[in-house]
Order: sequence, then structure tokens, then C-alpha cells
Amino acid sequence: MELTTEQMRFWSPEVRKLEPYIPGEQPKLQNLLKLNTNENPYPPSPYVVDAIQAVLANQADVLRLYPDPDATALKEAIAQQQCITASQVFVGNGSDEVLAHIFKAFFIQEHPILYPDITYSFYPVYSQFFGVKTKILPLNADFEIDIADYRQPNGGIIITNPNAPTSIALDLLSIEEILQNNPDSVVVIDEAYVDFGAESAVSLVSKYENLVVCQTTSKSRSLAGLRVGFAIAQPHLIAALETVKNSFNSYPMDRLAIAAAVASFQDQDYFQAMCQKVIDSREQLVNGLEALDFKVLPSKANFIFVSLAHKNAADLAAELRQHGIIVRYFNKPRINQYLRITVGTDEQNQRLIDTLRNQILV
Amino acid sequence: MELTTEQMRFWSPEVRKLEPYIPGEQPKLQNLLKLNTNENPYPPSPYVVDAIQAVLANQADVLRLYPDPDATALKEAIAQQQCITASQVFVGNGSDEVLAHIFKAFFIQEHPILYPDITYSFYPVYSQFFGVKTKILPLNADFEIDIADYRQPNGGIIITNPNAPTSIALDLLSIEEILQNNPDSVVVIDEAYVDFGAESAVSLVSKYENLVVCQTTSKSRSLAGLRVGFAIAQPHLIAALETVKNSFNSYPMDRLAIAAAVASFQDQDYFQAMCQKVIDSREQLVNGLEALDFKVLPSKANFIFVSLAHKNAADLAAELRQHGIIVRYFNKPRINQYLRITVGTDEQNQRLIDTLRNQILV
Repeated sequence: MELTTEQMRFWSPEVRKLEPYIPGEQPKLQNLLKLNTNENPYPPSPYVVDAIQAVLANQADVLRLYPDPDATALKEAIAQQQCITASQVFVGNGSDEVLAHIFKAFFIQEHPILYPDITYSFYPVYSQFFGVKTKILPLNADFEIDIADYRQPNGGIIITNPNAPTSIALDLLSIEEILQNNPDSVVVIDEAYVDFGAESAVSLVSKYENLVVCQTTSKSRSLAGLRVGFAIAQPHLIAALETVKNSFNSYPMDRLAIAAAVASFQDQDYFQAMCQKVIDSREQLVNGLEALDFKVLPSKANFIFVSLAHKNAADLAAELRQHGIIVRYFNKPRINQYLRITVGTDEQNQRLIDTLRNQILV
Repeated sequence: MELTTEQMRFWSPEVRKLEPYIPGEQPKLQNLLKLNTNENPYPPSPYVVDAIQAVLANQADVLRLYPDPDATALKEAIAQQQCITASQVFVGNGSDEVLAHIFKAFFIQEHPILYPDITYSFYPVYSQFFGVKTKILPLNADFEIDIADYRQPNGGIIITNPNAPTSIALDLLSIEEILQNNPDSVVVIDEAYVDFGAESAVSLVSKYENLVVCQTTSKSRSLAGLRVGFAIAQPHLIAALETVKNSFNSYPMDRLAIAAAVASFQDQDYFQAMCQKVIDSREQLVNGLEALDFKVLPSKANFIFVSLAHKNAADLAAELRQHGIIVRYFNKPRINQYLRITVGTDEQNQRLIDTLRNQILV
């Protein structure tokens, strides 16, 4: 939409300069194989649907009423599953909202925050939105973090682990070293994909007063459609997030999302089984693509990051789309010859490999 | 929670100063008559539950998938009901989130925004959160807005209509005069309670390029539990809100909330019937309280604002609570001898009147 200068006079000056985040495409067409936004190929726990049905059975008395603004039931369910206390949990409308509150709560500081050049592309957007100063630190040639880089004056650090879109994980000892090197900065570990094989930093929360771990139900719990994210930290950091949340929107979690997420956290067996299925499928998918000469970065996520010598990545994405398969292509420096591919079911992954082998790479 | 100076070093300095909004109490006890947060006493349209059931019937394929980040189906349903176009609609996670985005999108200006001294108490909180300058204009002695006050340099205007907690409505001609007197400022009319008898400014949106109308499904549509609010304005203002939203959280509306709200907007007959029931009950409640010598401000909302000579309002609220009835008391200048009481069903209202007459005011 083209706006005139006259129309723009109504906008806050700082908002005129914002460059919003662009989410992965959510195509409305049927029959597309959607391997572009890292959704889980399996449904959520059957208890999730039961829990929503239980709310609806009683609907006259509940949908009309505001939800618990503190979502206490959900904080308790998360605490139980993570072996922490509810006072160490903050919940929000998807981990994107939780991250936004994190930027506001901790990162508006004199010094810039530090994060890698290749990481979740919402970080620069939040930074601009809240006026957070940033210093971008390049990953090494293998797309790995050099933890020595994170030893300089800073107003905070945020690291996606496993990283996106590279899929590469940082080990817990390295995270601990970053925490120890920065005792006066908040270090945020964004673990959207941690349940697919990386080591979670939640085990370090009681030990480090400067650690915030952010997770989501969108990937490993198959609840992307319901928007539930959370952060885990010591109570003095949770209090900052609650202050920010209650200055922005008192009731971000609706009654059905709360009930659904509680049920998901109570079904640990299903959760572990589904994560393992995705991990197993990932290893098969990696083998299949390597057999087709793809270079595949070592993945601890529910997606892989791949490239193919002598084949332009943008062209490959376009050709896959013509065959009804959507993957994510980032037209950005250093990664514009890579594709991010979500791990699907074995059948879906086989369709991808067959399409590549029999129709595109022939 | 008591925080040490050492712990506070992790907070962004500006966040240390925030004074968050305090929502009305959501008691977990049963059997309380809850007349404190302006919820609708009637359930949402039965089609709402049907719509959620329809999503669940298909759950394997949808809860695991991200929702439409633009919530296009909901924008279209709202547009149809309001006789506008979808390009004039913005949706968010409750009208509180929509209002937060409005403050960011329009009100960070050189001049202060204008709003009354007695109004929705979230406005000063948003202002502090986003660094918006404010100039507070006192209502007159009858708690009415003097529109002549809104003719001075400003960076925007926000008016709750009907006002909260006073329940008093401003007529459409006065709103139009404010719009005409401020052609270079965004004028926001926050219509959370408009469906209970006030005149909506939506009919003015096509005429005024500086008008934003904000509404919610929480009150008149009985969906407080699902968090769906919206704004209506010309597309150049909607674009600012989309820019802000996409710099903060791409997917604020979950799949079930979208489906439920769409169904609600498609059941106009039920909506009108329930609003009329609340209006009729309100008139009866006002008569009953006036018979007990209460002073009741003229209400166009689903709540009333009342005072009783020779009876301290805080004491009265406490005594009602002892009898299992919760109303809202604001310990603030000018209104600390008033109570805000939500209109319940006729039976609930009768319980309130009987309790006052037979147990408290004897």
C-alpha cells in the first residue's frame, strides 16, 4: 500500500522507520507440502482436545469471563514438567510476545546487546521497535558461535539454541561460560527448538541470576495454532517480565490456550514420543539428502539447513514449489545459497526426496 | 516481591519506573456474584461453540499449524457486520493489545496527547510504557467531557465512549466536532461499551482520515475469555497498526479465537438480543438502586457508577463482599465515593438490591 506524506503525518515518527518481521508464508491452498515454518507434522496430545472440550462443556460460565491474568494453572504445569517452581515461569502469547517483553524488560541499556549475524530475524526488529542498541557478531565460517566474541561490554546477550536457521546447537558448557563471563548482563537462551536434541539451559536457571530461557509450545508440542510461549528465570527477572506485560496487556493468554497448554505439559510421554519420531525422521531425511549430494549442517532442531553445489538455492526453492513443496529461502548475505527445510513425517520427507531425485535433479 | 538493588541492575532502567495496570480481581472462589469486571452475564452465541468444535473435529491438521497472521477471516466477518471493508479493520489479542499498538503507532509525538482525568486507567500506563507525553483534562463537575477543552495543540486524543468508569456517553455530534477541530491529530474513540446504547463513531470512519475506533468482543459478545479486540479506521491508519503489530508479534490471534469471533460476528440476531437484555436489566437495576437513595450516573454501558450519601463507598464495597458480591472500587481522587457495578441478569441484580436493602442498609 502506497501512503502519501500527508497520510504519514498521523504516524508516530519512529514508527515510520520500522521494518517489520516477515513470517513464513501460510498458504491457504490445500495439498501443498508445507516444510517452511517448522511446524510439527504430528498433532498435539489427544488430552489437548479433551481439555478444550472440557472448557466448552461448561461454556456459559467461562468464555464470557476474563481468564486468569496470571495463567497460574499454566505456570504450575510448566513448572512441574520442567522441575522448577511457578515463580520461575513467565507465559505469553507465543514466544514472539515473550521475546518482545524480554527486549523491553532487559535490553534497553547503555551498552549494545550482542547476537550473531545469522539468527532469528525478529531480533533486529524488536531492537528497532524498543530502541535497543545492538552489536552483531558474525558466526564463524562453519556457522558456529565463537564464545570468545561474547566477552566485551554489552547490555545483554541473546542466543538461539539450537540456532535458526542454521540448526546448529551450542553445548551447555559454552553457555555456562558465556553466563560466567557476563555476570552483569542478562543472557537469553531462545530454545524454540531445544526439544529435538539440544541441551536445555533450564538446568542452569537456579545457578545463574542473569539467565533467561525462552521456549515455545509451537514446535515440540504441536500447538503453533494456539500461541503459547514461556520464559524461565529466577523470580527477580520474572518480575521484570510481569511488569512489562502488565503495562502492555493484562490478559494475553485466553482460556482455551491455557487449558490446552496445561494438558500438553501433563502428557510427558506423548511429548517425548513425538520428539523422538521427529528426531528419527530427521536422521533419515539427512541421509537421503546427503545421498543426493546435499550439504546438510548438523541439526539438533526439527528443521535442517541445506545447500547443493552447482544449484542456486532460490531456483531450487522455486522448483520445489512448482511441485507443491514449500521450503524457506532467506535472501540474505552468507545464507542465500541455503534452504531451511522442516522435518516432516517419513512419508512427507520421502516425497521431498523423490521429487528432488526424480523430477528436479534429473 | 522485594527486589534488591543488585537484582534490579538487570532490568532496563526505564522498566524500573513502570507502574503497571491492575486489572479487576478474578476470584477463584465459587458462588461469588462477580459484578466487578463488566463481563456479560449471558454466554456467547451458540454458534461460537459450534465453530470451535468444527476446528477441533479437524484438530490433527490445524492446532499444530500457525494461524493466519492476518486473521483475514475475522477481518472480513467484522467488516461485514460493521458495513465497512476488511482493509479498514485491525485485530488484536483483546482491545488492550489493540490500544497498546495504537499508542505506539500514533501517539509518540512532539505534543502531548489529551484525555480526561477520569477514564480507562490503562491510558497513563501505555503512555509511560511508550514514552508518550500526556495532558490530562478534567471532566466537569457532572463527569462530562467539555469538548472545548480538546481544542489545543496535541499529539493525539483518546476518549472512551461511553466513558469508564463513569458510564456516561458522548453524542456523535460532539465527537465529530473534536475530529474537525483536530485535523492533524489521530482521535481514538475507545468503544468497549458502545453496544449497550451509545452511538458508535464507526459511521464516521469513511469521512475522517484521523479517526480510529476501537472495540472489543469481551463485553457485548461475551468473549472476554478469548481475547479478541479490533480497531476500525481508514487504511493509512490501519497500515500503521499492522507495522507495529508485525514488529512485535506476528501471530497474536490463535486459531480458536479467530474461529469463535467469526461465528460471533455472523450471529447478529443473538448479539442484538443479548445487548437489549442487558440494557433492559440496567434500567431495572437503576430504578431499584434509586429507590434505595443511590445516585446513579446516566449509563449507556453494561455497568453503572453509583454513590450513596452518608455511606463510605469503600466500606460499602467491603460489606457487599462479605455478602458474596464483588463490585469495583477505585481509590482515586474525585471517584473514591463511587462504586462501579456491572449489570448482571435480573436475578443477580435483584440479589444485589435485596442484599443492600435487607442486610446492609438496614
